[in-house]
Amino acid sequence: MNDMGLVVVGAAGRMGQTLIRTIHAMPGVRLAGAVERAGSAHVGHDAGELAGLGKLGVAITDDPLPAFAKADGVLDFTAPAATTEFAGYAAQARIVHVIGTTGCSAGDEAKIAAAARHATIVKSGNMSLGVNLLAVLVEQAAQALGPEDFDIEILEMHHRHKVDAPSGTALLLGEAAATGRGISLGEHSARARDGHTGVREDGAIGFASLRGGSVVGDHSVILAGTGERITLSHQAEDRAIFARGAVKAALWARGRKPGLYSMRDVLGLSRAG
Amino acid sequence: MNDMGLVVVGAAGRMGQTLIRTIHAMPGVRLAGAVERAGSAHVGHDAGELAGLGKLGVAITDDPLPAFAKADGVLDFTAPAATTEFAGYAAQARIVHVIGTTGCSAGDEAKIAAAARHATIVKSGNMSLGVNLLAVLVEQAAQALGPEDFDIEILEMHHRHKVDAPSGTALLLGEAAATGRGISLGEHSARARDGHTGVREDGAIGFASLRGGSVVGDHSVILAGTGERITLSHQAEDRAIFARGAVKAALWARGRKPGLYSMRDVLGLSRAG
Amino acid sequence: MNDMGLVVVGAAGRMGQTLIRTIHAMPGVRLAGAVERAGSAHVGHDAGELAGLGKLGVAITDDPLPAFAKADGVLDFTAPAATTEFAGYAAQARIVHVIGTTGCSAGDEAKIAAAARHATIVKSGNMSLGVNLLAVLVEQAAQALGPEDFDIEILEMHHRHKVDAPSGTALLLGEAAATGRGISLGEHSARARDGHTGVREDGAIGFASLRGGSVVGDHSVILAGTGERITLSHQAEDRAIFARGAVKAALWARGRKPGLYSMRDVLGLSRAG
Amino acid sequence: MNDMGLVVVGAAGRMGQTLIRTIHAMPGVRLAGAVERAGSAHVGHDAGELAGLGKLGVAITDDPLPAFAKADGVLDFTAPAATTEFAGYAAQARIVHVIGTTGCSAGDEAKIAAAARHATIVKSGNMSLGVNLLAVLVEQAAQALGPEDFDIEILEMHHRHKVDAPSGTALLLGEAAATGRGISLGEHSARARDGHTGVREDGAIGFASLRGGSVVGDHSVILAGTGERITLSHQAEDRAIFARGAVKAALWARGRKPGLYSMRDVLGLSRAG
Repeated sequence: MNDMGLVVVGAAGRMGQTLIRTIHAMPGVRLAGAVERAGSAHVGHDAGELAGLGKLGVAITDDPLPAFAKADGVLDFTAPAATTEFAGYAAQARIVHVIGTTGCSAGDEAKIAAAARHATIVKSGNMSLGVNLLAVLVEQAAQALGPEDFDIEILEMHHRHKVDAPSGTALLLGEAAATGRGISLGEHSARARDGHTGVREDGAIGFASLRGGSVVGDHSVILAGTGERITLSHQAEDRAIFARGAVKAALWARGRKPGLYSMRDVLGLSRAG
Repeated sequence: MNDMGLVVVGAAGRMGQTLIRTIHAMPGVRLAGAVERAGSAHVGHDAGELAGLGKLGVAITDDPLPAFAKADGVLDFTAPAATTEFAGYAAQARIVHVIGTTGCSAGDEAKIAAAARHATIVKSGNMSLGVNLLAVLVEQAAQALGPEDFDIEILEMHHRHKVDAPSGTALLLGEAAATGRGISLGEHSARARDGHTGVREDGAIGFASLRGGSVVGDHSVILAGTGERITLSHQAEDRAIFARGAVKAALWARGRKPGLYSMRDVLGLSRAG
Repeated sequence: MNDMGLVVVGAAGRMGQTLIRTIHAMPGVRLAGAVERAGSAHVGHDAGELAGLGKLGVAITDDPLPAFAKADGVLDFTAPAATTEFAGYAAQARIVHVIGTTGCSAGDEAKIAAAARHATIVKSGNMSLGVNLLAVLVEQAAQALGPEDFDIEILEMHHRHKVDAPSGTALLLGEAAATGRGISLGEHSARARDGHTGVREDGAIGFASLRGGSVVGDHSVILAGTGERITLSHQAEDRAIFARGAVKAALWARGRKPGLYSMRDVLGLSRAG
Repeated sequence: MNDMGLVVVGAAGRMGQTLIRTIHAMPGVRLAGAVERAGSAHVGHDAGELAGLGKLGVAITDDPLPAFAKADGVLDFTAPAATTEFAGYAAQARIVHVIGTTGCSAGDEAKIAAAARHATIVKSGNMSLGVNLLAVLVEQAAQALGPEDFDIEILEMHHRHKVDAPSGTALLLGEAAATGRGISLGEHSARARDGHTGVREDGAIGFASLRGGSVVGDHSVILAGTGERITLSHQAEDRAIFARGAVKAALWARGRKPGLYSMRDVLGLSRAG
């Protein structure tokens, strides 16, 4: 099979450039198009030069449909309004659409689901293979090691510029743990211990956040029992892992029948219906 | 339901005493009998006093069958010859038999399987809930994150008195990783890196061993990809975790139909046939 | 040199028993006496039997002075009122007095300092060799790696029964970091991050606490800079480390001239005057 | 004080470009010159453009002396022959010379020492602030916690392309530990445990190496005693830390009297003579 041709939408943005560099570096894929919104100063320029790779012979365009028509898939970390439009074009072109866009409304989701009748769509709020795998493992561990024996704690560390705590990924892992336990995270969270806290509440899921330096993102889920501890961790060295995950998702989706898939499907770890 | 009555066989040994103390400390179970081999100096003495708990009113006996007849289950970390005999008695009494004995031959296994037609047997080479769960998670992670993207390394640390490396549990985790990858561990192990090793071999499973102090047993499986790392760890604080796992297995097996089960069944994580 | 004879005061308490077992297990020391307060039901009983070691031939007494007269040193984790009295007896006997007692008032400290004119006293709020060493290293690291480049975070994990956060040892490490930086910990602590926190405050020392299982006590001090991180950690596997540290302090103090020493002196890491 | 003007020698190499980017990103310094060897195709081109920063107005030159004459310091990660020559020019210009070059012979070292009569030279085989600090802390810890109580283990992890083990930094940390213990590392190393190893040798310093993914470099020194463990770790997220350390060294050296200094001096942690 020849290399999969991928279009990057939002090509001039920070994530768009990372996607272009990632496609350039990974085997089995090639840059087939680069799309920016009409009016962008970058339209007409070479996408490779913009991304610091030197000339690649792919000019940035503001006309997605012709670009999609010549491609096998689209990588999309833009915004909900653009993403729903791109999903429609991907359906027309009957190609793969990998969506890392966040903040979609119920209405947006419905449009994406409709497009998935003809496009092969993979959508996830976090495109890292590792984080998605970790969430699956955490859910199973939380189910297998019950609250009467094991306490669950979630620790994360991020760089000094992060303005909120816990991180979105820590909450995602907390939700996975709560799902495994069959409880509501909102009702069983222990956050920000300080001062006289009393003994640990049975069944609580604890969170702690560290901040400092340039840490891209470390997450650990600890299941602490009597005399033993399980720790499941993910460490991101580089923000490009989200771009790599998107390319892996596109390669997985190539040749698969239309539908709406998740990163769990890509990992081969979906729950049976 | 009243407390589950458990017999400890090999009651005067180090593990037997740990089992007695663990039964004493855990809810839902009580010591129903304590068996030693004929001729042991401990026969006739109180099992609680031997284990440092004070008098429990359970005398150590060398006659297993009457002890089994009054019990709901047996905890057994003895030796193959004794274990196969105890399995037969458990079958006669139609009770639970938890087997942590190692070194069974194919013939021993056949006898145990025969007994499992009438006894509810849980057998595992490592009775820790945490280690068994970790092995399941490692297998899945190794399958989901393939060798083209993720390198697998296994690290263990044990106390200064341990005489071999890597630990049995490290090898068990290596086997789980190899199973997930569909490869043979023997053909894909990288052990004891030192000097000029060359670049890492594709698809290898690496091992490293640390020794020092009084460390009971730490194990980590690292899946290292480009830009991200997953680490799955188990830390044993106390050798009593094996006794606790055996009690948990007995409680899980109580009332279950006869058969031969593993710790994966106890964890609710068995693979579908 | 013959084994150092040590008296344990508060011999029937939990820490007293741990001290007796630790002296029994370590080379170079022997149990020379065991003291309890007048009226204790344990007076007259064998100290070894009480500690689960079998008969040692040392009866528990409520008369400290004769016991001290025959000994080389005293291990004391009692209470301020008792400790100041014992310090006076140790001065009379001109022996070593290792004090792990906490909560001493300024008046108590003055009495202890007075006794140190004739007794060789080692006093510390935390008798673990490892924690005391860590505090020294943290102070140096905090001084060498300044706040313009490195952010300091302190993480601790303890068992589910602990009722306050951060731990006393975490605060002790925070004080060491603040000393290294020449700042006040109270004015530069960041505790309990949750919700919208804003970017990390320059020069802050952050704290986070995890709770779960049976963890004896883990502490990490992280210095996170741009592109690199230093982590200095201590892990306690066993509460007996405080007893071991006290015995090591006694051995260090033997034959040394009277005075008031700290665990930094024992470690050979005191700052020059 | 105005920004310190720095010359980068070997400006077109990988480390040279990293140095240029690092100078550009850090406060208190500016790029004052960029030197390549005569005949380099890069001579005459703008140093900023080469490093991907856009035009900086500093042309690459093959004539070091005029560049040094206008500068406050030189950053040098080249090769011994070039470095000794640059040291001579730095001495003529009476400026700072930061040397990260490795592989210098005794003769080279003598030339550098001679130049240090007029130049302020900082030289180290590893320019990371964190690694140099760690080595100081390891030496102290190894001295304070003796071999009768604490076992020392050194663990490192690097990317899959590394061809030797243990890493140079692991050996540097091992030397620091050996110095603290007053022993020879060569005679007390335990490397590559595999198979039947027997119990741990008293006083040995153990090494273990992990390889995988894109790990820049993690190092941990573990001091494992009975019931407690100290772990001192360094984690490099980015190879630019060596460039950052060189710039910090230059800033520290500015205005200091001529002499030959180490990174320990920069950290303020030198041993008293």
